Amino acid sequence: MAKNRESGGLPSRREVLAGVVGSAAVGAGALAGAQQAEAPKPRPRAPEDPTKMQGRVPSPVGQRSAFETPERMVRVLEPSSSSRTPLQYLQGVVTPADLHFERHHGGIPNIDPERYELLIHGMVERPTTFRLADLKRFPVESRLRFLECSGNGGTAFQNRGRYPRMSPQEMDGLTSTSEWAGVPLKLLFREVGARPEATWFLAEGMDAAVMTRSVPMEKAWDDAIVAYAQNGEPLRPEQGYPVRLFLPGWEGNASVKWLRRLELSDRPFMTREETSKYTDPLPGEKARMFSFGMDAKSLITFPTFPARLDGPGWWEIRGIAWTGRGRITRVEISTDGGDTWEDAELQEPVLPKCHVRFRKLWNWNGRGATLMSRATDETGYVQPTREALLQARGSYTRYHYNQIRSWRVESDGQVFFAG
Amino acid sequence: MAKNRESGGLPSRREVLAGVVGSAAVGAGALAGAQQAEAPKPRPRAPEDPTKMQGRVPSPVGQRSAFETPERMVRVLEPSSSSRTPLQYLQGVVTPADLHFERHHGGIPNIDPERYELLIHGMVERPTTFRLADLKRFPVESRLRFLECSGNGGTAFQNRGRYPRMSPQEMDGLTSTSEWAGVPLKLLFREVGARPEATWFLAEGMDAAVMTRSVPMEKAWDDAIVAYAQNGEPLRPEQGYPVRLFLPGWEGNASVKWLRRLELSDRPFMTREETSKYTDPLPGEKARMFSFGMDAKSLITFPTFPARLDGPGWWEIRGIAWTGRGRITRVEISTDGGDTWEDAELQEPVLPKCHVRFRKLWNWNGRGATLMSRATDETGYVQPTREALLQARGSYTRYHYNQIRSWRVESDGQVFFAG
Repeated sequence: MAKNRESGGLPSRREVLAGVVGSAAVGAGALAGAQQAEAPKPRPRAPEDPTKMQGRVPSPVGQRSAFETPERMVRVLEPSSSSRTPLQYLQGVVTPADLHFERHHGGIPNIDPERYELLIHGMVERPTTFRLADLKRFPVESRLRFLECSGNGGTAFQNRGRYPRMSPQEMDGLTSTSEWAGVPLKLLFREVGARPEATWFLAEGMDAAVMTRSVPMEKAWDDAIVAYAQNGEPLRPEQGYPVRLFLPGWEGNASVKWLRRLELSDRPFMTREETSKYTDPLPGEKARMFSFGMDAKSLITFPTFPARLDGPGWWEIRGIAWTGRGRITRVEISTDGGDTWEDAELQEPVLPKCHVRFRKLWNWNGRGATLMSRATDETGYVQPTREALLQARGSYTRYHYNQIRSWRVESDGQVFFAG
Repeated sequence: MAKNRESGGLPSRREVLAGVVGSAAVGAGALAGAQQAEAPKPRPRAPEDPTKMQGRVPSPVGQRSAFETPERMVRVLEPSSSSRTPLQYLQGVVTPADLHFERHHGGIPNIDPERYELLIHGMVERPTTFRLADLKRFPVESRLRFLECSGNGGTAFQNRGRYPRMSPQEMDGLTSTSEWAGVPLKLLFREVGARPEATWFLAEGMDAAVMTRSVPMEKAWDDAIVAYAQNGEPLRPEQGYPVRLFLPGWEGNASVKWLRRLELSDRPFMTREETSKYTDPLPGEKARMFSFGMDAKSLITFPTFPARLDGPGWWEIRGIAWTGRGRITRVEISTDGGDTWEDAELQEPVLPKCHVRFRKLWNWNGRGATLMSRATDETGYVQPTREALLQARGSYTRYHYNQIRSWRVESDGQVFFAG
């Protein structure tokens, strides 16, 4: 059979570097990979015939194959920084915890779980401090849910495809899906006797940034959890160990990590993080605040840069879609730049506020083609074009960049971001 | 608030050791932890106030908190070996890939994915060799599914609670849930032109054991996949990297890892692995072969040894249930040794052939109590008692130990396996 190398793997260090060199989007940020560029490592070796030698014995904690070296794309912007999930490398919807994206404003704190305390106070009958063991004694809930940074996709929006050597990781790697587990926040608010006049609460982290956000009480009564586990195990440090707030379907920054305090009030707190940041400029010198919900979005993960199709024929277009409003009901694919659209298949089960996989077989004729995907959610909301987003929010908008993306397949099989 | 330490964490090395010392179940096996017992490590340190210092920057691949050191329980029985998932340490259903149980008969082979080939031949029109890139070009399917070793729980069955210092990990740690992704086997069988007279196929691994099993063709036309990804990323080496067979709901050994050959035939191959092993003795010098399906089973994971309840009051009984026949429809809990039963809550979504979480609040009065769980699946099958299993299969039976387990809570809060 012909060798049909999909080339869908993780970009090499060189490829990542090339993408970055071609991109002004990095701004003041330093890409760790670029700063620490090393000589390429020699390829690992394996025996010619593995059946002829006894294999190695188990280890208490497993390791990846030496042939697989996925990496998050790290950006350090002192004092704040981020890392991006290698979306083009992954199948399914679960993101391994050590490849989940991260974003923080003061680095990752080191917290002793035995000394951890969460204070709930303000408009409550019984101000209370909970230790980690106290939280674990409450009923636990576990849910597969996406988490996305509100700034995800900003690079693609600003650059409009002028920097085509951009992978899904670089463009949209600030979204991941995990199974989050913890105590429903409403149980804690009932325990402390939240007063009926409380309409907002402040969530405060114990990192160097003392990250704070105001959250409407409705979210607590709905589906907010105080999470202490991710994909089965305790939270990873960069995800808020030992405890974070988790607000399904809402922009990531509001799911405050390293959570140490919840204060109930009858108004929002207007903190630094919701005034200097996380407010979206609109046309006409207006702005919208508290734009928590993440709108429907879809993203092709194959074929995308740096993959290369090695010839015409059947290829499966693959990607992920998600919405903060509930379930994705439809993803359409265009292979002619948006002139015609056809439905992709969605991988069951389609869970609410969770990445869902879509796929569609495409018989490539070997000529240039432009691939696009468009998601619709259960509220009827349709992922907008870049033009529609511009019209609604103006060119200076920040955050919530869910416009349709395009990928250009060249006749030589190379694939580039096209706006 | 009083300190309510759940003690639901991973057993310490000392506790694991204690459980092993008290257990004849280890048999000829050497527990790696016991052999390599070291002085306890000093507790990691953390700053008094993490807000007063800049945290660390992101890394390309994340690490666990220094305060969290989960381990699989490793047993090396040269040339075969296993490792067990720390079930009492985990929440939700997703098992991190590096904590997924493993079992192999010739160690873990080291395979170069570029040289990997899968041959499909026998009763087919077009014998074909597929490279990894060829397999990835077929449509991909991803599913959250459990995988359980057919021998899981044998220790508990044979020991009947005579060795009470046994954790869920030691007793039943050969089951885990992951999101498995790959190409549906039926697509490959259509590609090679499987002949209608083919009723079985042989699956062969490229490990030192050259593991082989015969599988009915029905499973291929149903839901078998040729898997190359687990929880998003490429398979881990101990899970069959780069490619394994995955047969949802069937005993683990039939999901042949490091898959190199599929041969179609009109009869089973009667290989070593299905004659010397994986055939279940029955009463009257009979035996049953090809007992692939895993019956319904449930397992309490908290409170269990080595946890200790630090006082009377409300505690949440938690665990997992699963069945190879489809969906779990009910899990009942008894706190009085089986005299009375009440329904536990199941965590949505309840997926077929997948672990599901159950939980039930229990108001412990501080006196001795015996906890049990009982699962029912969508076919109406009910998890049997030990007596019923003995009657059906005899005391010399091996494999498929899904009898109801009991845990004894002593008045001092200690919890022990009770049969």
